[in-house]
Amino acid sequence: DEDSTEIEQLLSYDEDSAGGIMSTEIFSLREEMRVQEAIEALQQAEDVEMVFYLYVTDEYNHLVGVLSLRQLLTVPPQTQLKDIMTRDVIRVTTDTDQEEVAHLVARYNILAIPVVDDSNKLMGIVTVDDVIDVMREEATEDIFKMAGASEEELLYGFKSFKIARLRLPWLLVNLFGGVITGYLMWMFKATLEQIVALVSFVPVITGMGGNVGGQSATIVVRGFATGRIDMGTLRRVFFKELRVGFIMGTVCGSTIGLVAWFWHHNPYLGLVVGLAMVTAMTVAASMGVLAPTFFKKIGVDPAIASSPFVQTANDITGILIYFGTATMFLQLLL
Amino acid sequence: DEDSTEIEQLLSYDEDSAGGIMSTEIFSLREEMRVQEAIEALQQAEDVEMVFYLYVTDEYNHLVGVLSLRQLLTVPPQTQLKDIMTRDVIRVTTDTDQEEVAHLVARYNILAIPVVDDSNKLMGIVTVDDVIDVMREEATEDIFKMAGASEEELLYGFKSFKIARLRLPWLLVNLFGGVITGYLMWMFKATLEQIVALVSFVPVITGMGGNVGGQSATIVVRGFATGRIDMGTLRRVFFKELRVGFIMGTVCGSTIGLVAWFWHHNPYLGLVVGLAMVTAMTVAASMGVLAPTFFKKIGVDPAIASSPFVQTANDITGILIYFGTATMFLQLLL
Repeated sequence: DEDSTEIEQLLSYDEDSAGGIMSTEIFSLREEMRVQEAIEALQQAEDVEMVFYLYVTDEYNHLVGVLSLRQLLTVPPQTQLKDIMTRDVIRVTTDTDQEEVAHLVARYNILAIPVVDDSNKLMGIVTVDDVIDVMREEATEDIFKMAGASEEELLYGFKSFKIARLRLPWLLVNLFGGVITGYLMWMFKATLEQIVALVSFVPVITGMGGNVGGQSATIVVRGFATGRIDMGTLRRVFFKELRVGFIMGTVCGSTIGLVAWFWHHNPYLGLVVGLAMVTAMTVAASMGVLAPTFFKKIGVDPAIASSPFVQTANDITGILIYFGTATMFLQLLL
Repeated sequence: DEDSTEIEQLLSYDEDSAGGIMSTEIFSLREEMRVQEAIEALQQAEDVEMVFYLYVTDEYNHLVGVLSLRQLLTVPPQTQLKDIMTRDVIRVTTDTDQEEVAHLVARYNILAIPVVDDSNKLMGIVTVDDVIDVMREEATEDIFKMAGASEEELLYGFKSFKIARLRLPWLLVNLFGGVITGYLMWMFKATLEQIVALVSFVPVITGMGGNVGGQSATIVVRGFATGRIDMGTLRRVFFKELRVGFIMGTVCGSTIGLVAWFWHHNPYLGLVVGLAMVTAMTVAASMGVLAPTFFKKIGVDPAIASSPFVQTANDITGILIYFGTATMFLQLLL
């Protein structure tokens, strides 16, 4: 019967597309109708949950125009719909991504958006309340992914083992990165044994790199999600983040350099720690832009990939930069 | 004149409240009106951008009911509005927080919400398109704050110095925390000089603590924002995160313990590193819940305070737990 065909068709759409979230209960009118007939049709319509826009179709059910309910009340009853309708209708197709649907509804301040198939046949409608759910869902998803968690865990409530299994993969990436970082420190064992004071600045160098990289990655991931950043503006964003990282690196590097100098009474130690900090923070900022961009390009959600990878990469480069600088200036430090 | 009084009044509301975002152009009807009169009033109304709900007021402009436009078309023209209107209207007051307004609109799937003053006088209307802007803004704000950035920086475009100044405060908190962490490591200098191998696990211990704490903090901050977590469920959330942290700590601790054992051919080193990891990750998870809760209780936005504080606190406790454990088992390690 008709109902099961409809459900079958809905199931065939991607659940994150306009086709997957649209309602197929559309109240539409034919362009040859007169206003009086349209009002009568509206009075007889049942189960039409929310009517704000009246979509107008031609004889083949192609979407050709739109009317507001209030418009119907302000023209003579004998007027034909095609003479008063607006022909320029903002529409999406069944395979438009739900995030794009939300962007359009938000940008044009509309209450509903009609969904058509490839031949412009009216298939359904996405209303603003669905869009609100989409936006909330997408924001939560991004926030969770960026922390290496997953929105899926909301389904598990308080089942700790299932939740732990969802979060663990990202932690294991970091664990692996941490082992590499530790191994690199071990490679600089000779330098370390001569200047134990270097050890005290390891957490601050890796920590600050992680934070700066995290800030840049957050700006880029959210910028992609809201459409504020695209591949065209990315170059400018990259150089902006590089500058911001360098400026903040200079402030933090000078501070930590002075701390190192006066704490260990060694100006060269201050110089090494400070220089390493500036370099590590500038590199971290640029990686914060490059990592999500790379993941977007290869078709992986930037939000999911950014945080653990950026942090691991920053730890590794931070340690290399720090001990590399220290080894270079080793004679001055002794 | 009337216009400037209106603007003056709008300015007196908090910009994050219903009063601050509402539109004062409301089309309302009186309860004694008949349907025919209501339709005529609607036809004559100008400048009424979007009418989906018709709010009904009494003679003192108190909000008493609501009608839909379609309802008007389906009853006899002589019916009085008070006989067909719905009396149970979802409403907010001028000082309701915009986030709460967004929650209500999303929960009840409504297109607009009327705003009343303390005496139930109809003051304005917040429409769903304003709510969409609020939701997007609040999500971006939370995401940025959690990374120690700020939504304000969107205003600055590509002005690197201004952006750097906005992000720096949170980095400086971490810088200070990093110095304390380094100082604590220095206090354990004697232990370190005897077992240099301990150094190689410092980044992984502090890094994993930071990540676990970040995951828990993210769940709690977003839970507060969406209303999924409140002070009533917090106790359960705390124990859940504690369990999740312990489970993940056991997995990561065993892994890193085995790595340490076989790398440095010392089972006791494996035991110390593994135990420290389990403890640090469990403590970090609980702090990830406690920190945003504390900030919420003292009236500071949990999102802004969570990330840098959680990371700094985790670095410090991670180092103390690690070197504390190592010093306790020092005889076995040598």
